[in-house]
Amino acid sequence: MSALQFDPPSPDKDALEGGESFTPRFDANGLVTAVVTDAGDGKLLMVAHMNAEALALTLETGVAHYWSRSRKALWKKGETSGNVQEVVSMLTVCDQDAVWLRVNVLGHDATCHTGRRSCFYRTVGLKDGKAILADDGSAPLFDASATYRKPS
Amino acid sequence: MSALQFDPPSPDKDALEGGESFTPRFDANGLVTAVVTDAGDGKLLMVAHMNAEALALTLETGVAHYWSRSRKALWKKGETSGNVQEVVSMLTVCDQDAVWLRVNVLGHDATCHTGRRSCFYRTVGLKDGKAILADDGSAPLFDASATYRKPS
Repeated sequence: MSALQFDPPSPDKDALEGGESFTPRFDANGLVTAVVTDAGDGKLLMVAHMNAEALALTLETGVAHYWSRSRKALWKKGETSGNVQEVVSMLTVCDQDAVWLRVNVLGHDATCHTGRRSCFYRTVGLKDGKAILADDGSAPLFDASATYRKPS
Repeated sequence: MSALQFDPPSPDKDALEGGESFTPRFDANGLVTAVVTDAGDGKLLMVAHMNAEALALTLETGVAHYWSRSRKALWKKGETSGNVQEVVSMLTVCDQDAVWLRVNVLGHDATCHTGRRSCFYRTVGLKDGKAILADDGSAPLFDASATYRKPS
């Protein structure tokens, strides 16, 4: 457990948007949105969620932690794959319900569980009145199926 | 109303993550997360949410529409301020519960309702065991208080 606690958000809009206290506005599930970009070239890598514990651990250790909504568990990014994220800076959005992490990715420099560098690898377009996806051709940087293989 | 409809997400993970059909995974509130960056320099501008109607309108018109959770209404970004977002490209995340919009911002080239270019203008740090914010000094690009003044 982290010792770092967050004060509740101020009801005063000016304090929330212009003050010096970081008081994250967690949603009904106790989460804020986290947008993650590469600190080097600014590439958008992923979007995830953090609860208070993940936020506190990230601030205290300098390594990105999230809350896995699918596994309902604290998630130290890269623990299995080695693709740990060193946090260069964290910013908050005006009304403090989201954060932006600028990170250096260790390991394979890959963030997506498919093995690709970024989770955003397909463009959305319209064709014959349907929304379709086009792969941008980014190749996997590690063997995700072997890395995440469940023990038999 | 938009004519564009989205098929339900495939239960097959490979189809969802590697297929050509855009089948957004809306959350319990019917929303996906939208991350918005400047198509020119890649600057992270805002994080918002889209329902099916906002997604469809954005794809059909090429102008960013969102769902305002606070106002519970469809929200054409920039309708009041003039800071309309022209969408250069839209990408989806691996499991299709978020999208990334690369946009050109018209008007004042400002996205934040505080008048700043980006909603991310404060860095989060630790000081004496407390999480504190430091303003990055970005100045308002328009007079937000006058622009958003409610009619008396």
